This record gives sequence, C-alpha cells and structure tokens, in this order.
Amino acid sequence: MNYYDNRQVILNKRPKNIPEAEDFKIIKTVLPKISTGKIIIRNIFLSVEPAMKGWVSSIGNYAEPVPLNGVMKSFATGIVVESCHCDYQPGDYVTGLFGWQEYALVDACVVDRKIMPDLLPISTSLGVAGINGMTAYLGLLGVGRPVTGETVVVSTAAGSVGSCVGQIAKIKGCTTVGITGGQKKADLCKNIYQYDQVIDYKNDDLTKSLVKSCPEGVDVYFDNTGGPISDEVIQKLNIGARVVLCGTASISSWNPAPLGPRLERQILIKRARIEGFLIFDHKESYSKALLDLTNWIISGEINYREDILHGIESAPASISAIYRGENLGKLLIKLDEA
Amino acid sequence: MNYYDNRQVILNKRPKNIPEAEDFKIIKTVLPKISTGKIIIRNIFLSVEPAMKGWVSSIGNYAEPVPLNGVMKSFATGIVVESCHCDYQPGDYVTGLFGWQEYALVDACVVDRKIMPDLLPISTSLGVAGINGMTAYLGLLGVGRPVTGETVVVSTAAGSVGSCVGQIAKIKGCTTVGITGGQKKADLCKNIYQYDQVIDYKNDDLTKSLVKSCPEGVDVYFDNTGGPISDEVIQKLNIGARVVLCGTASISSWNPAPLGPRLERQILIKRARIEGFLIFDHKESYSKALLDLTNWIISGEINYREDILHGIESAPASISAIYRGENLGKLLIKLDEA
Repeated sequence: MNYYDNRQVILNKRPKNIPEAEDFKIIKTVLPKISTGKIIIRNIFLSVEPAMKGWVSSIGNYAEPVPLNGVMKSFATGIVVESCHCDYQPGDYVTGLFGWQEYALVDACVVDRKIMPDLLPISTSLGVAGINGMTAYLGLLGVGRPVTGETVVVSTAAGSVGSCVGQIAKIKGCTTVGITGGQKKADLCKNIYQYDQVIDYKNDDLTKSLVKSCPEGVDVYFDNTGGPISDEVIQKLNIGARVVLCGTASISSWNPAPLGPRLERQILIKRARIEGFLIFDHKESYSKALLDLTNWIISGEINYREDILHGIESAPASISAIYRGENLGKLLIKLDEA
Repeated sequence: MNYYDNRQVILNKRPKNIPEAEDFKIIKTVLPKISTGKIIIRNIFLSVEPAMKGWVSSIGNYAEPVPLNGVMKSFATGIVVESCHCDYQPGDYVTGLFGWQEYALVDACVVDRKIMPDLLPISTSLGVAGINGMTAYLGLLGVGRPVTGETVVVSTAAGSVGSCVGQIAKIKGCTTVGITGGQKKADLCKNIYQYDQVIDYKNDDLTKSLVKSCPEGVDVYFDNTGGPISDEVIQKLNIGARVVLCGTASISSWNPAPLGPRLERQILIKRARIEGFLIFDHKESYSKALLDLTNWIISGEINYREDILHGIESAPASISAIYRGENLGKLLIKLDEA
C-alpha cells in the first residue's frame, strides 16, 4: 500500500462568465486508500476545453455543474499505478474524466478506454484521437452527412474540432471552406489542414468572402461559434443543407439570450436542417470513429497540432487563454512525474 | 371545337406585404383552342393559401414569383371538359395548379391527380385530402417522427394543416397540445380536432399555459407560425426534440428579417433538430399519404372544416382575409357553372 501526495485544482468560486485563474485554487491532499473495484491513475496529460466554461456555470447545460470546492472536471490521460479491478494492471495507459489533479482514485467504470501508446502519442487521446476528433467525425458524418462534391463550411476552422472536420470532409471528397480569426490560424488552415478556401473573419469581409469561397452555396455548415458569423453562413445555405450545431463559442453570455436575425424563413425556404450535436450521446459509435481517425492520423491524411502547458500550476489560467484565442492547437497540460 | 368565355384573376400590382383585393384584377378572356397533349378543365373549387403571399412576392422563395399580369397561381379542382391526351376523358375530376380562373387550358402534366368523387367530396382534394393534409402527414411523420406517448405541440392548431397534424399525432398515440388564437378556434380545437390541451395565445398566458399543458416537455413542435410563439415553445423542448418548420405566419415582413432571441444554445444543449419542410419536395410520397388520409377521413378519425366563398369575384380579397384570421376552416372558392 502506497501513499500519494496529490495536488488538485478545485473550483474556488463560480465564474461570472469565462473562468479565470482566480476562480480556481490548487490544494495539496493525500490520496485515500484504494479499495475494491477502484484504480489509481497518475495523470500525464490534462485536457483544456472551451466547454469547461459551461461545466462550471451555475446554469446547468447538459451536465450537473462542478460543485464549489470540487475538483475541476476534465478529461485526462495517465498510467495506472495501482489497481483493484481485474480489467486494469499497473502500467496500463487509460483515458477518462479523471479531473484536474495529479493522481486520480476512481471506480474502474470512470475509465473511457485503454490507450495503445505504440499506435499514437498518448496526448492524442485527448484531442484528435479523442473527444475532439470523435466530435468532428460523428458530428460531420452522422449529422452533417456530406456527399462527395458538396461544399462544407467550418467555423473555428483551426480549432481542435474544426481542423479535424475540415480534413474529414476533404477525405470524403468535399470542397472545404474554413472560417478562422487571424493570420496565424488562417495559415494553419491553408497549409496544415488543407482547406480549399480560408476566410479570416478578423481581416476579410465575411459576406464577400463567403460569396467568393462558396460559388455553389453551402451544403453542410459545421458550426462551433453561433452568432453573427453563423448568420452569414446560413444565408448561403443550399436547398437541403445541414447545419451541425456543435458549439456557441462566439456568444459570451446567454443570460439573457442575445438577439439575432430570425432564421425561420431561411430554414423553411431552403428546407434546411439545424441540429444540435453532443458527443456524449454517441458512445456506441466511439470505437468505429477512433478506428478511422487512427488510420487517417497514421496515414497522414489528418494533421493535428497541440499546444502543451507544463505543470498543474498552469491549469487555472488555461480556459481563459482559450477564449482569448491564444492557443493554435489543442491545449493540453503535461504533468511531469515528481 | 367549343369556345369558352373565361374569367381570370391576374396579378395587377406586386403587393407590398399581404396581398389585398386591389393587387388583383379580374379580366375576361376567351380560352385559346385546345391542341395535342392538352386538356381543358372547368374549375369547380379554387384554393386560397397563406403561402400565396410568398408566391406573389418579388423576393423569390421556393418558386418563381407570379409575373405581373399573370394568372394567379393556385391549386384548383375541376372537371375535364375537353381532352387531347389519352389519360383524360371529359367527365374526369382532376386537381392541380390550374390557377384562379374559370377554365384552364393546360398540358396534361399539370394535373396532379384524378379525384374519385364517390370516395370523398371533391373539395377535400384541396385541403384535408390534398396539399394541407399531405403537408401535415408527411411533415409530421417524415420530419417530426413522433413516437407513441410523446408530446406534440402544434401552432395554428385550428388551421387546415395544423388541425390535421393534431389529429394524426393523436392517431399515433401522442399527447397533443394545440396553440390557436381566439375562443372560436380554441373551441374547434377542443371539440372537433380532439386536442388534449388547447392554448388560446390571445387570451391565455402562453408561458404559463405551456408549462401546464406540457408537464413532460415538448418532443415534437409542428410550427406554422415562427416568431415569439415559437420562441416560447422551443424553450420547452426535450432532449432530442424535433421542430418541423412549415410556415412563418406570425412574421408579417422578412425585409429585413426581424430580430429574435438566439436559439443556438437551446438547440445545442437539447440536441434538438429544426428542419424546414416543403410539401413539393415529397411528391413520391403523396399516394401513401392520401391513402391513409382518405381512410382516416372516412372512418371519422380525422375531422375537417371548410369555409366556402362563392364566385371568382371573391378571390382577390380572400388572401388578406386569411391573414386577418377570418376563416375557421380551409378557405375555398366555389365556381358555379354559368
């Protein structure tokens, strides 16, 4: 029986809007003793997600909010160091909702899956070969259902979900148009994520650029932003177009809901479909998605980028950094062994 | 060879918004001679639809607008009086886009279908056993996809589409909630169209009534109105709910699009689907829809109501009457033989 000194990031106060560093606190604890059915994981990578803003909001969305003084909810990937469950052995790499902490003592059922470190770097299990890649894959193919030759537009095109959407659409024979903000991200979209057309909404005229980039209209819009950018794209929808509503990154507050132009007429006359997508509804399809994603990453058909912060001390400020658009790739926190 | 004195309603000027009587003109003409492949129909019933507002608008929607001085586009049902096409004989009852006129000389392909007057009154071919019933049937079952036990909310619940939606949902074992305006229509909804719950938005508090009428939330919303009523219903959607967007009757002008509260967050967290529906996309399913509708009308499971105006002189003012909510049932114009 070992004892583990642990450090945990807890929710110190409920953020008014975007979670800032001072909304969290790092505390030192000692991990409780392991018991039957449980495992102890040493976390190696912690994930940082835009969705965390919703996870700590008092207005529930699709899950119970993280309680005050509770460990911040997070995907993480680590190595099993002790196990009281027959499915797991010390040395196994696993990923799941292990939280922002150095060690996690969890029921074995909290593990999402084992990771094979000989196939792909284990960090990818939190991004392109994890929740972000699967969101792109299942949202695009299951809800957007693009057909060869169609035009697929992606907002937050350089993001960890968006970049993967663009590349999967390309694999499926579509024309891809990425909308992103800033020259650096636009360059990534062109050079790394192989979009056919890239619109930098911070520097280009969005309306004119959409007309030019989508001469045959928009068949699928994978939307991570909502708001005015989406209003413009939706005006360009073709008959029978599909909008995958996967995030609302451009809306800073929903209390109250901001106003926007009504879309009823456009949805009606274009017989368009707008559908919300949440990856957690689709667990039965994870294996197939991961299989294809892994193959495409190995073959080089899907490129990805990661931005790595070091040490648990970097966690509290990381969410607001995402909302300021500071990261260029999937934002991760690497924990080095003490 | 016979000659037919004809009267036609033509579009005299393009309406600013809702088409009024003075936007049309009735002219006398003589029908041209019949030629190969054509038939002559004496129209018996002309249809009046809310959608006609869109058909005469210069802003195209799903079809080319009716040209100035052109015969007003309309569904009509009549009897073949001459035929130069082997599929049709004098005495056949037919329905199709024959226009607001007493006689129509058309290519045989303009006929939607023959009518069997021994099954149902021929007027129903323009409403409950025609475009309105088929819209209800295919929109509800094909897009809304209600499941037994679910709650189905219908706006313009007493209308020719809405009343049919409510009754089909009931046949499918759903709890039905109708939203309508005014006591007379609310009474029709309760007593004739058998809604489980009726909300009179002109006299009831819509928000409170929705909570009370939909204790288990809303699974399917069949929307003929758009606007603030729909905003309220959409706030009550359950996870995985479906919205069939079939009309925007509550929005008087789309130029420019009015503002409304943004729905992105609600669509996302409820993983809801909002989909535009236009009956003309679904011609391959008309026969099956008409078969079921005819059976349900004969068995008394679907009730309907018609409001009949007489003579072609009543056509020009009929569209604005619909928008003032003056009719209680499907509005038709009956033409009596000279």
